[in-house]
Amino acid sequence: MKSNRIFNFNPGPAALPVAVLEEIQQNFLDFKGSGMSITEISHRSQQFEDVINDAMARTMRLLNLDDRFDVLFLQGGASMQFAMIPMNFLAGDRTADYIDTGTWSAKAIKEARIQGKNIKVVASSEDKNYAYIPRNIKFNQDAVFVHLTSNNTIKGTAWSQFPDTNGIPIVSDMSSDIMSKPIDTGKFGLIYAGAQKNVGPAGVCLVVVRRDMLDRIPETVPTMLRYNTYATKNSLYNTPPCFAIYTVHLVLKWLEETVGGLDEMAKLNHKKASLLYDFMDTGGFYRPTAEADSRSLMNITFRLPTAELEQKFVQEALKNGLGGLKGHRSVGGCRASIYNAVTLEAVEALLDFMKNFENKNG
Amino acid sequence: MKSNRIFNFNPGPAALPVAVLEEIQQNFLDFKGSGMSITEISHRSQQFEDVINDAMARTMRLLNLDDRFDVLFLQGGASMQFAMIPMNFLAGDRTADYIDTGTWSAKAIKEARIQGKNIKVVASSEDKNYAYIPRNIKFNQDAVFVHLTSNNTIKGTAWSQFPDTNGIPIVSDMSSDIMSKPIDTGKFGLIYAGAQKNVGPAGVCLVVVRRDMLDRIPETVPTMLRYNTYATKNSLYNTPPCFAIYTVHLVLKWLEETVGGLDEMAKLNHKKASLLYDFMDTGGFYRPTAEADSRSLMNITFRLPTAELEQKFVQEALKNGLGGLKGHRSVGGCRASIYNAVTLEAVEALLDFMKNFENKNG
Repeated sequence: MKSNRIFNFNPGPAALPVAVLEEIQQNFLDFKGSGMSITEISHRSQQFEDVINDAMARTMRLLNLDDRFDVLFLQGGASMQFAMIPMNFLAGDRTADYIDTGTWSAKAIKEARIQGKNIKVVASSEDKNYAYIPRNIKFNQDAVFVHLTSNNTIKGTAWSQFPDTNGIPIVSDMSSDIMSKPIDTGKFGLIYAGAQKNVGPAGVCLVVVRRDMLDRIPETVPTMLRYNTYATKNSLYNTPPCFAIYTVHLVLKWLEETVGGLDEMAKLNHKKASLLYDFMDTGGFYRPTAEADSRSLMNITFRLPTAELEQKFVQEALKNGLGGLKGHRSVGGCRASIYNAVTLEAVEALLDFMKNFENKNG
Repeated sequence: MKSNRIFNFNPGPAALPVAVLEEIQQNFLDFKGSGMSITEISHRSQQFEDVINDAMARTMRLLNLDDRFDVLFLQGGASMQFAMIPMNFLAGDRTADYIDTGTWSAKAIKEARIQGKNIKVVASSEDKNYAYIPRNIKFNQDAVFVHLTSNNTIKGTAWSQFPDTNGIPIVSDMSSDIMSKPIDTGKFGLIYAGAQKNVGPAGVCLVVVRRDMLDRIPETVPTMLRYNTYATKNSLYNTPPCFAIYTVHLVLKWLEETVGGLDEMAKLNHKKASLLYDFMDTGGFYRPTAEADSRSLMNITFRLPTAELEQKFVQEALKNGLGGLKGHRSVGGCRASIYNAVTLEAVEALLDFMKNFENKNG
């Protein structure tokens, strides 16, 4: 770690690879010999087209997508997707199934209902405070999609395997685990991810859509809220968030060329998470909040014996160069977000701190 | 000019103050001693709250806004505002007047009509290819707002004075001249501006709204598309585009503390535009496309005797370190965008080049 940097366990916006930050910094006043900053060049220039096309091509390769899919860059984060999905895909009396695994799933459900859409919540883990992922779900065969949240940032749970929907396309919020491991994209109709956790800074939302999903979008949907607008214009209908897309492009380049792709990334992410879970499971001072078979590899949520100790833990950790360990304000406790850019070195430093803190306070 | 930089006359994304770019660069790996990049810090941190609050406070001071107004930061650019304005303000059979002064006005009109809203186009300058700003407009007294585009980036026209609407609030797209001069904000119900011309990078839209405009927003408008969501949550309902807001904050700081406010900025902008218009008016080789009383001070659109000379002009200018002088693809010709961050030095360099080019080719 560089002397002026901390180990960053923030849940999002979150750590970015240092090599990416350094490349941005180095070229910030003169992007590729243009004599302009990346924040000053035209989105219609060849230089920027190369950036956005490269980000799309790397997304296709990393996720192993076939040519039925388009990669789009939108604004408004996952929260805007909660509104756009029913607006685009649930014309008239079309219906969809939603699975409720916590705060973000619930917001997606709420936005469909605000628009008066006919949706059904087919499973929920609210009965145990969202500490698990529902199994054996019965889906409605007239649903045009099944919506789920692949990784629950606040509750610390994740789908280790996606459900069998009998061919109904899955629409998934993958904001907090996109690009953390390979996925079977054949099951999905649409994947969306606010970039600010695993693939970039806040201000851009990565969307992967299977083109046949775009067939029945109502004419009354405004241009900027139609997926078609982005699919047919290479996400350049209007001025896109250029700096955020540029950063995503650099993060994906790092993921392909430095890390070596999603298989390698998954191995490292599994190792990082196991270090923390295995340690907590053998003690008793730190208690993971998610059930063992539903645990997230990205957001490790845990409690200490008392709220006072949790506060002390977060404060002392920061003094030791470990930031962002406070749990979400809606649930309390502690949380270590260990996204792709959080290094093994950072996780080992956290583990050491946890052991020392337990020795002093346990 | 630094050796590796060019004079940037891009229409947007556009030039930013070099001092702002240097400050971003210098602090990019460690924002205010946090040990994190501005792209890595939490939007719920005190550090980021200070940034967004400062950007809002400076907007209030620079535009001389009273406490009836809120400053908001949204995503999706002005194009998303075209959709949000009718969605929020034209419930049921409410009606509004729109003025058509070119491409961007027309897009605003189109988005209201896509939603089936009852609007009237009360004036248009289409008859003369949008080379002028309409005068003596009769407004409908049942209109809940009058929509206009204050500066027309593509056609090179601007409102030097806003129309008397008999008290109907004006809703204005000010993307290309926000903060370029003082305005009488008392006439306005809502002002919006994609940041990437005068106040920052692409990826954030500055909105100023008079709070009484927010009284009758329909319940069916999705959360992310309601102005209220931003007004009641300090634009932090969800993760905002942190880097773009940070840059806006630095640009506004530069505008207040280095330039000295909008009166000073207006003087400089007037001087820059006059240099170019006065030169063109005394010759005949370069012909401004906008009528004299409707000219923009931000986007100087002009023609040369032939399309071949225009192409040569743009290419030779770039070789001489003057970039972005091509007219919009929909109208052809040439355009010098001389927003706030384009220096007098840059305009003087352009003027010298224009004189030399005319001497060689006239």
